[in-house]
Amino acid sequence: MKKVLVITSGGLDSTVLLYQHVVAGDYVRALGVNYGQRHQIELQYAARNAHSLGVPFTIANMSSLAELLPGSSQTSVSVPVPEGHYAAENMKATVVPNRNMILLSLAIGHAIAHGCNHVSYAAHAGDHAIYPDCRPVFADAMDAVAQVCDWTPVRLLRPFIHMTKTQIVLEGNRLGVDFSQTYSCYAGQPGIHCGRCGTCVERAESFAEAGVKDPTNYESPDFFRTAKAKA
Amino acid sequence: MKKVLVITSGGLDSTVLLYQHVVAGDYVRALGVNYGQRHQIELQYAARNAHSLGVPFTIANMSSLAELLPGSSQTSVSVPVPEGHYAAENMKATVVPNRNMILLSLAIGHAIAHGCNHVSYAAHAGDHAIYPDCRPVFADAMDAVAQVCDWTPVRLLRPFIHMTKTQIVLEGNRLGVDFSQTYSCYAGQPGIHCGRCGTCVERAESFAEAGVKDPTNYESPDFFRTAKAKA
Repeated sequence: MKKVLVITSGGLDSTVLLYQHVVAGDYVRALGVNYGQRHQIELQYAARNAHSLGVPFTIANMSSLAELLPGSSQTSVSVPVPEGHYAAENMKATVVPNRNMILLSLAIGHAIAHGCNHVSYAAHAGDHAIYPDCRPVFADAMDAVAQVCDWTPVRLLRPFIHMTKTQIVLEGNRLGVDFSQTYSCYAGQPGIHCGRCGTCVERAESFAEAGVKDPTNYESPDFFRTAKAKA
Repeated sequence: MKKVLVITSGGLDSTVLLYQHVVAGDYVRALGVNYGQRHQIELQYAARNAHSLGVPFTIANMSSLAELLPGSSQTSVSVPVPEGHYAAENMKATVVPNRNMILLSLAIGHAIAHGCNHVSYAAHAGDHAIYPDCRPVFADAMDAVAQVCDWTPVRLLRPFIHMTKTQIVLEGNRLGVDFSQTYSCYAGQPGIHCGRCGTCVERAESFAEAGVKDPTNYESPDFFRTAKAKA
């Protein structure tokens, strides 16, 4: 049996990933990382989802990362959250330097400590344009280093790396994911998605494209149509 | 000019490394990581050495790593520090799972945030026998991933990777390093090295082999001769 540590944020992509491994019958553990992001609401969703699936869940408290890696709107309240389409230039403000290598290295260490030989993360094709550490070339290189970081190789799984978010919504729908129990808004208001930040626009767009009913409570439910036209 | 972030622990190897980059005329920053190790004495040495060389020094506070990566004598007080020669089987208790990938990923993120395009660390040939993440194959793989984790490549320097600790002592001696201002004992008593743990034995042995006067204050100054014979 595959023993898999899934990195989960409580967002849509990583929740679908968690379901996928559970449904596949893998032994699953989950890890959420508090890297000093503006809000930890999404980690509450991650904890709830793991709990309802019977998956052991740990939060790595790395809140001092924000100090170490300044300059991103995701970790500094002084940098405003950009609004609009993900692919736009201003979304670069949301990049946390080397975030994924840090998350993956923590996850690989935690996996080794708990006898898991796989780490799985939900990077997908839509991320590549702005996040260098979501590119296939990065995931391939991380998989290579994970195989030599310990005496026993760890493998890095990234089943969504060539999938669009629309395809992930379709996969989640097939697996019976309750999307209302996922949270991914950058603005971080409890119980409501803004509908205007990059991740909200991408989310709303993907449900529309997939033809799957979007149960998300948006402050600006139609903003994504305009943002799309502008991008 | 090379802009280099040096990972320094206050130990002998990384202090020599820091001197080497400063003497080479590189722009140098230094990073120490509190990963929840039993004692932080060595980080005080790191801070002092950086200060005396005029190098900006940051401590990354990752003390909750100990919880995430249990089971090592370096992070758990419940696991005793083994005594004897480094190469021995019992030294495996000192391995922190995936420690170097975590340290390097933090350092690479910090380097990117501060415009450094190189990260340098002091893994050396003597570490390979017990630490999988000190092997050249691991360092090569980390260098590869560092080149694709951001839009601008970061390179990983590891000038000591094929050197013995004896050669590092000789290099430090050539550079005028004050070895009394380095600390590497696993037992972590202020102002004194035990002389019996793996790193003390290796330290004492290396000075003896290099023919360089050892200024270290050891509790058991001759223990290393017996440990060597047993290994």
